[in-house]
Amino acid sequence: MNNSPGLPAAASPKPGSQSALRQRNEQLIVASLRENGALTQADLARVTGLSTATISNIVKAMCASGLATTEPTTSSGRRALAVSLLETPDVAAGIDFGRSHVRIILASPGFAVKAEKFVQLPVGHLARESIATAAAMLESLLAESGIARSQVTGAGVGVPGPIDHRTGTVIRGAILPEWVGVDIVSQLEQALRMPVFADNDANLGALAQVTWGEHRTVRDLMFLKIGSGIGAGLILNGSPYYGHTGITGEIGHAPIFDQGLVCRCGNRGCLETVASTAVMIELLSRGEPAPLSVSDVIDRAMSGDAATLRVIDDAGMAVGKAVANVANMINPEIIVVGGPLAPLGETLLAPIRRGLVRHAVPAVGEGTVVAMSSLGDRAEALGAISLALSHSRHWPR
Amino acid sequence: MNNSPGLPAAASPKPGSQSALRQRNEQLIVASLRENGALTQADLARVTGLSTATISNIVKAMCASGLATTEPTTSSGRRALAVSLLETPDVAAGIDFGRSHVRIILASPGFAVKAEKFVQLPVGHLARESIATAAAMLESLLAESGIARSQVTGAGVGVPGPIDHRTGTVIRGAILPEWVGVDIVSQLEQALRMPVFADNDANLGALAQVTWGEHRTVRDLMFLKIGSGIGAGLILNGSPYYGHTGITGEIGHAPIFDQGLVCRCGNRGCLETVASTAVMIELLSRGEPAPLSVSDVIDRAMSGDAATLRVIDDAGMAVGKAVANVANMINPEIIVVGGPLAPLGETLLAPIRRGLVRHAVPAVGEGTVVAMSSLGDRAEALGAISLALSHSRHWPR
Repeated sequence: MNNSPGLPAAASPKPGSQSALRQRNEQLIVASLRENGALTQADLARVTGLSTATISNIVKAMCASGLATTEPTTSSGRRALAVSLLETPDVAAGIDFGRSHVRIILASPGFAVKAEKFVQLPVGHLARESIATAAAMLESLLAESGIARSQVTGAGVGVPGPIDHRTGTVIRGAILPEWVGVDIVSQLEQALRMPVFADNDANLGALAQVTWGEHRTVRDLMFLKIGSGIGAGLILNGSPYYGHTGITGEIGHAPIFDQGLVCRCGNRGCLETVASTAVMIELLSRGEPAPLSVSDVIDRAMSGDAATLRVIDDAGMAVGKAVANVANMINPEIIVVGGPLAPLGETLLAPIRRGLVRHAVPAVGEGTVVAMSSLGDRAEALGAISLALSHSRHWPR
Repeated sequence: MNNSPGLPAAASPKPGSQSALRQRNEQLIVASLRENGALTQADLARVTGLSTATISNIVKAMCASGLATTEPTTSSGRRALAVSLLETPDVAAGIDFGRSHVRIILASPGFAVKAEKFVQLPVGHLARESIATAAAMLESLLAESGIARSQVTGAGVGVPGPIDHRTGTVIRGAILPEWVGVDIVSQLEQALRMPVFADNDANLGALAQVTWGEHRTVRDLMFLKIGSGIGAGLILNGSPYYGHTGITGEIGHAPIFDQGLVCRCGNRGCLETVASTAVMIELLSRGEPAPLSVSDVIDRAMSGDAATLRVIDDAGMAVGKAVANVANMINPEIIVVGGPLAPLGETLLAPIRRGLVRHAVPAVGEGTVVAMSSLGDRAEALGAISLALSHSRHWPR
């Protein structure tokens, strides 16, 4: 267990430090090799946008730790070194805890998914039930896939709430009140018997976009998760951004209506009281025999139901207004929307863009790309794998 | 002139890159030595919070470029190297262009101020008038202080508007419409005959806090300039933050009232239409024989005038609400308020804190320090010096 209590779970190495930057660059190289197969160092420089000196240093370290190998080749008639990934027996686990699910994915340091499991849990279950479920799921995943526990170098874990990096605990404001105050890292390390690294789910969604997703060369990215809660994760200057105490991306509590509904955070009219899936369901379930599900909302929107489209439009405009405020400050290149509403596509993105353009300064409103995540519901678990890999022996400090 | 056209003015080296981090660390070491005199490397590690390896590398480079020297000493009975700054003949210039003023400060690479000048200009003057004034001021500053032009390694320049880092020009939204579209770097390089590096004034205010100010070890800082415009500058993960195109910190355009006054950005009810000094003056000048000045507003507040205090309180609460939105996202350690209202002290800070606590999630509202800048009106020019120094030969890439 290499996470001593009191040490920040996800804050080692220091975000924004040279080693954090180096890890991001290494992940960029690994992802490019996984996607393209063997590449020369010159090709890697072109694909990743990194300098050849940076690439050469990182490739050297990857070869030393058994993650990559090089062999002589020729490129445009000149001698060159072809770099390729070595398959190692190691895997990392990514665990995504939701309000009513646990998802686990196992993948290699070369970003190849080895095994995957998803389990539904009742809303309001206790933290220890989630943890026990995850431990049992991991056990059966290992048995089914023939992977030994000793091959698992560590587990990244996403929880839907902010983690105070000074104490390693989930703080007030989490969508899962059952997790508040739980020292998630040490409890999971006991249950899983491996090093555990925890982070907020939206932060991991952001990390997934720049490691597993299509935005690997983006330096300033905001991931916006719209679900029963609304949260954001930030990649700034090429690295995950954690702020002073780890409580970032709380866009769900941006004030939209001064005299609006009371929010679980204690304020009024927060974005979550206007645009979460829970609010959409509540609005659209009136007069229905039973509350709708998120898929019902999506189905109705797809079939052109006017009330559903209006609710989604209003929610999207409110999200766009909140996002405009943030974009005015941090000028991201792209805002990636994730969460269960992803199948709505342009139906949700269009009002978000309208809200953004209306409320942002013109150069920012017109210049910021808003797109749906291509990683779907797996973004958080995939990002958790990247987090675990960034702490494994393949990523020397 | 080492800033080729089309190259971003202030974006070289790439913000957040290893060299940007290194420059920040070097400035931290220089500032510590300036303040404390000679220090051992172990002392420097303690004072700056940097690792001894980082310090040793940077001290080596500083000695090689003639900025520092080391000599043997003993510390707690053990042999050590005392590091001290060398006085070099070099100076850097910091130029702050305001709506109605130009300020120039000359300082050494060791952060010692050598000369200083301030000139008032009429509101609405043209960009070329500002530039001509700055050139004449620099000429007479050099003559008066006996500094040769060849000693000036470069000039940092602050303008009160966002600079698009792709074109190097001031973009729409600047408080000085006269500057919009002007290629400020090349025009100033012609007029001043030295390398020029330009940035938004609030960004330079933020840089000043962590180089000249008392917040040198803060990694996540927001500088908030409240003047006739309202803008913010960000230090994130220890480095100035510029975002995708350089248009960050536009908190003056956070929407406060949906149906509020039309703002110069084209939106309605922006923070600037509620809380800028121009709005305060307009509100308080009704029925007065002539419009008040900012000092009149400060004087009236200090003497307890109820209307003035109410106007400041309302403005502060609005600023606090806008700041809460940002703090919820980026979780800064400290928010430093600068600009001409600084003499108001707690009269302005108290309502900002109230707005922040009311609208931020509790852990952020309670955990974020709000303070007045101790650098007063000079913050922007001092930050401009840091910018110029970061590009001079004393800060090798």
